[in-house]
Amino acid sequence: MGILERIASMPERLVIGVASSGSASAVRVALLRLKGTGLSLSWTLLAHDSLEYSFKVRDLILRCSEPGGGDATLICRLNVLLGELFARAATHIAGRAGLGIGQIHLIGVRGQTLQNLPAPVTLTGVAVRSTLQVGEPAVVAERTGVTTVGGFGARDLAAGGQGSPLVSYVDYLMFRHRARGRLVISLESLTSLTAIPASAGPDDIIGFDIGPGSMMVDDLIAELTGGSETRDTDGRYARRGTVLRGLLARLLEHPFLQQPPPRSCGREEFGRHFLKEILRENPGASREDLLATLTRFTAEAVAGACRRYVMPHNVYEEAVVSGTLVLNRYLMEQVREAIPELTLTESGEYGLPVSSKEAVCYAILANESALGTPNGFPTVTGAGRPAVLGSITPGFSGPAAPRQ
Amino acid sequence: MGILERIASMPERLVIGVASSGSASAVRVALLRLKGTGLSLSWTLLAHDSLEYSFKVRDLILRCSEPGGGDATLICRLNVLLGELFARAATHIAGRAGLGIGQIHLIGVRGQTLQNLPAPVTLTGVAVRSTLQVGEPAVVAERTGVTTVGGFGARDLAAGGQGSPLVSYVDYLMFRHRARGRLVISLESLTSLTAIPASAGPDDIIGFDIGPGSMMVDDLIAELTGGSETRDTDGRYARRGTVLRGLLARLLEHPFLQQPPPRSCGREEFGRHFLKEILRENPGASREDLLATLTRFTAEAVAGACRRYVMPHNVYEEAVVSGTLVLNRYLMEQVREAIPELTLTESGEYGLPVSSKEAVCYAILANESALGTPNGFPTVTGAGRPAVLGSITPGFSGPAAPRQ
Repeated sequence: MGILERIASMPERLVIGVASSGSASAVRVALLRLKGTGLSLSWTLLAHDSLEYSFKVRDLILRCSEPGGGDATLICRLNVLLGELFARAATHIAGRAGLGIGQIHLIGVRGQTLQNLPAPVTLTGVAVRSTLQVGEPAVVAERTGVTTVGGFGARDLAAGGQGSPLVSYVDYLMFRHRARGRLVISLESLTSLTAIPASAGPDDIIGFDIGPGSMMVDDLIAELTGGSETRDTDGRYARRGTVLRGLLARLLEHPFLQQPPPRSCGREEFGRHFLKEILRENPGASREDLLATLTRFTAEAVAGACRRYVMPHNVYEEAVVSGTLVLNRYLMEQVREAIPELTLTESGEYGLPVSSKEAVCYAILANESALGTPNGFPTVTGAGRPAVLGSITPGFSGPAAPRQ
Repeated sequence: MGILERIASMPERLVIGVASSGSASAVRVALLRLKGTGLSLSWTLLAHDSLEYSFKVRDLILRCSEPGGGDATLICRLNVLLGELFARAATHIAGRAGLGIGQIHLIGVRGQTLQNLPAPVTLTGVAVRSTLQVGEPAVVAERTGVTTVGGFGARDLAAGGQGSPLVSYVDYLMFRHRARGRLVISLESLTSLTAIPASAGPDDIIGFDIGPGSMMVDDLIAELTGGSETRDTDGRYARRGTVLRGLLARLLEHPFLQQPPPRSCGREEFGRHFLKEILRENPGASREDLLATLTRFTAEAVAGACRRYVMPHNVYEEAVVSGTLVLNRYLMEQVREAIPELTLTESGEYGLPVSSKEAVCYAILANESALGTPNGFPTVTGAGRPAVLGSITPGFSGPAAPRQ
């Protein structure tokens, strides 16, 4: 029996999800017990954690994340370095749940995005749409011995999709409801949205990247503190500032926010070069005022996306929010203020701790890939067909079989 | 039944191998009919071809292949561009054999190596050994619909190996002999060697990268002709030159050639920067003399590797040569002269056309990976265990199953 058959034949699977945060600040990791697949999937979260990158690792990532940044030697090494860190994160979370890594059946990996270039360019006469993640699955599979699925986004892009938000498939499995229309809003380094009308089938789902999340705020803090701080914990600085109205208005005119879905964004739109432009244009602004403005920008972008592309088309009563940015109470106040017509529920109320969201998502996507269940979501990403995303790197299958 | 089980359950498989040449000059592609796996494998070559890269593609590859060359945006795009070209090559070779791509069961892909860094470096406290190939398997799988295996080298490195020569596994399957000791010498952009004593088991095999092949010669021609020519066809220029004895002696002192196996090399050792050093140190030398010297260097390096690391340990009567460089008659004369004690046989005599070697190799490696047969060769690459190499990207499994 092949390795995937063994995985598929199990009544339940222990699956780890590992996701490098888009803000390049940490590895999120979660361990789940999964049964079934597709609409019959049921899940139990056994453990989750977030492991911070060192300043040096974050710096290496950011160097490769700017347009034209990095070089081949660095990317070659960073790919393996992150693979090693992912493997350690997986082993750590198994231990946290009292398990050895050898007891785990499957790992899903979302690598660190260095570049996200879904807009076609013509290169030597060939239309090219591309995305680049690092964090080598072969290293994870070899260090842990566990079959590892990665490369989800690359396949969605190849299938004509935007490569994002891949989380919408999992949002649909988790939060669809017969009688209630729900928005599921992910507040991470970037923000995205999945709109699930009551009784929705897969083709009724809308999902897209909203835009900026913690990425700009984190980058600004790092810039202003010379890297000694990397986040505005709980909106501590932002809360003391005053929103700069002119700047906010200009931010909300960002071309990405005007782009109809499907759409996906990354550092190309909201990375450090964009931040530097803001700092250049507002030389006298205080840290507090800038952070207040960027935080309000995120909240307004979320509200604008809901009002413009989603709420006119269906009835939604509830917005389920998840993602590490939910832990920023100040931002959450701003979001609540910006869309008072929606009831905001934290995903923790449904058993999904807000900061476990991304890692949980990639555990579930890996489960589907290993079982051959299509986990691409064409109506969301714009792909041409519901592909089985990802590439599967085999783990150890026990002692190697003798060569025949 | 899962996609890998369907592949494994077939009495015979149509498998395409695609390999980007180390000299960045062409995609080699071959279509085989395969039965069995491991020592029970039998193969029939149905078609093979070589599709030249344009000057522009070659230039993009070379920019990313120097130490510290390229950037993340270019690598992101090049990865997809080569994936698209690999998919076209696969479709082309199926057509050449009168088949539709939908009739193919499996594709094995050897991406273009941009960086090969097996020597450990410590990065943020983590020992990192890395290799970077581009030519996205997800693009190949999506364009062709065929399950695609890639990333062989990354896994061998993760398992502690040198990532090269992966071809030794296939050499062993094809050329082992009960009564005859054989050397199998691959003469491609780089050269490698597999030594198979009579009646050898897998653990008796020695294999390693010898060093320079057509890479330096091709680069020199391109440099001297401003890119209008990219190879010294049949040693046309070299034949008219005179070997520069002093330069040859210095070349043969190259540290890589003194390094005991396991060892692997790439552009890091023999790329354009090395060539530029040679040109700088020999400003008055003619093109013909330089090419004669580099060609002799290749032949002497092959002979030296055989004499130093292989022939003292066992009896070898025959050397089977393969690789596109075998088509260079002048080089072959030099090799014959350098090791008169061995009978040189071209692999074509055994039904393996010399220029199909690399592509055939990756078709066979993919077959093994899909069937779960370990195809890593620890005694050759130095890996810690016989791993199943590669990552598997699923093809279409017919019309997507309805979501349950």
